[in-house]
Amino acid sequence: MRKNARFAGVIAPVLTPFGEDGSPDAERFVQHCRWLMQDGCTALAPFGTTSEGNSLGLDERMELLEAVVDGGIPADKLMPGTGACALADAVVLTRHAVELGCGGVLMLPPFYYKAPSEEGLWRFFAGLIDAVADDRLKIYLYHIPPVAQVGFSLRLIGRLITAFPRTVVGLKDSSGDWANTAAVLAAHPEFDVFPGSEVFLLDGLRHGAAGCISATCNVSAAAIRRVHDTWQAKDADARQAAITALRKAIQAFPMIPALKALIAHYRGDPAWARVRPPFVELGAAEAEKVVRTLADTHGFRLEFARTA
Amino acid sequence: MRKNARFAGVIAPVLTPFGEDGSPDAERFVQHCRWLMQDGCTALAPFGTTSEGNSLGLDERMELLEAVVDGGIPADKLMPGTGACALADAVVLTRHAVELGCGGVLMLPPFYYKAPSEEGLWRFFAGLIDAVADDRLKIYLYHIPPVAQVGFSLRLIGRLITAFPRTVVGLKDSSGDWANTAAVLAAHPEFDVFPGSEVFLLDGLRHGAAGCISATCNVSAAAIRRVHDTWQAKDADARQAAITALRKAIQAFPMIPALKALIAHYRGDPAWARVRPPFVELGAAEAEKVVRTLADTHGFRLEFARTA
Repeated sequence: MRKNARFAGVIAPVLTPFGEDGSPDAERFVQHCRWLMQDGCTALAPFGTTSEGNSLGLDERMELLEAVVDGGIPADKLMPGTGACALADAVVLTRHAVELGCGGVLMLPPFYYKAPSEEGLWRFFAGLIDAVADDRLKIYLYHIPPVAQVGFSLRLIGRLITAFPRTVVGLKDSSGDWANTAAVLAAHPEFDVFPGSEVFLLDGLRHGAAGCISATCNVSAAAIRRVHDTWQAKDADARQAAITALRKAIQAFPMIPALKALIAHYRGDPAWARVRPPFVELGAAEAEKVVRTLADTHGFRLEFARTA
Repeated sequence: MRKNARFAGVIAPVLTPFGEDGSPDAERFVQHCRWLMQDGCTALAPFGTTSEGNSLGLDERMELLEAVVDGGIPADKLMPGTGACALADAVVLTRHAVELGCGGVLMLPPFYYKAPSEEGLWRFFAGLIDAVADDRLKIYLYHIPPVAQVGFSLRLIGRLITAFPRTVVGLKDSSGDWANTAAVLAAHPEFDVFPGSEVFLLDGLRHGAAGCISATCNVSAAAIRRVHDTWQAKDADARQAAITALRKAIQAFPMIPALKALIAHYRGDPAWARVRPPFVELGAAEAEKVVRTLADTHGFRLEFARTA
């Protein structure tokens, strides 16, 4: 494992609970953040794709982030999503995160206009770095073409690293394409690369990845952390096989509603199941099926006794 | 042509000029709005795709809209884009537009998360209408799957019209697929349907469309308006052929930078060429080529003498 990675380890894109009126539930959110850190996460990435981050308003994101810091999570362990289609919005969110002391930010490219040129994306990030104008800013590029449709080419990554070596410091690769992750790792050995799924954790660590940032860390950080911490042990492959199997079982369901259904079930707290449009929560039968399938096939369960 | 269409006619998604520092240039924006109304537009749709609307921050959009109303454009002739990925943001923009007296709003679906369910999109719009809670709200659905990737199915359109017949009153169809436009027109004869390109204007009017909302109205509203106003005349097809040919010539170039290059050239105002990332303005040679190609092949030129 690389020694200089700021965020090395296992990072959850934190699920966002909602209140009865649909507004973000800061209390449950902070409680979940605390539990994730106890369960094995080394850091947290609020407002990612799994967090329904793009379904949150700017003010909502900033208020939740402040609640997390006020709730005792060290700001340097936070890598909030601050990307936006509009540079002006991305600047507001990024500046706020930096001023709160966040260790990094996870930034989508502007994703409305499709097939932008490399130069156009370059100008977006150069403009953002120029506007934020703060040496503390550490950007992790968020490459997730299956959802954002717009991604980061190897050439653009290289250009950003060369121009801003102390600011553009890493990338989350949610392409689902190991060949792409391997290519980024090979091209930029000093860059903090996080596969977007624990399926690639062991392969990643063997090739110099910094860890993983994965949706399923919301419910299985402990097991993923064990793979991370013992990756050089003889039985690492067996442990990797187990977390891969669990991940695949979970992603057979609609990911965000399924993760929330699991937490609602094991916390005995139906409020956790709520999602924002355009998502729809699972029906009772489907939620029960997620719980039963994972319990029966993988012995999966969640324990919340350790948390407040 | 339908008699009850609120926005019947020719509508420009207004280009947004930017200042030297990249901020929106309200003065040039209002000037352009005034000129568009003189040139033949019957109404204006600021903050559409062509407006780089999704590259504008929430505050920027609201300030520009206020400047346009203050600048003397009747608010009931404005159909600003107020869609957003986050319901909270869409509510803020939509409420602001309604309170300013805008005749309608043009709403993208939430476009970050792909392949949302019909139910999820339904909940987004039902939630928005519930939150805005204002009888003056008139929503035009913005169907542009080539860019947003997320669109409105015929079933979803029908469901929204049935539930909110006085609120969900129309649709802009930028699918580029005449069969889809024709299907919406056939299914909902009382709905205000606007093809997203003047290429479909005459066909649209013959099938009950309300007009068109098209990027190229920024530079050729007069000719498009003539087709609109004389669509039952004998020589309508020849006029349609001319505007179709011009549209195709323009869209052979990158649309937004090319439209801005044309205005910059004919106004003798290089500032007009500026775009926001992820777009990049045309180089000098390419800008010259746009001007020359259209002039040589279509006799195209712009006259701004009539405006301030």
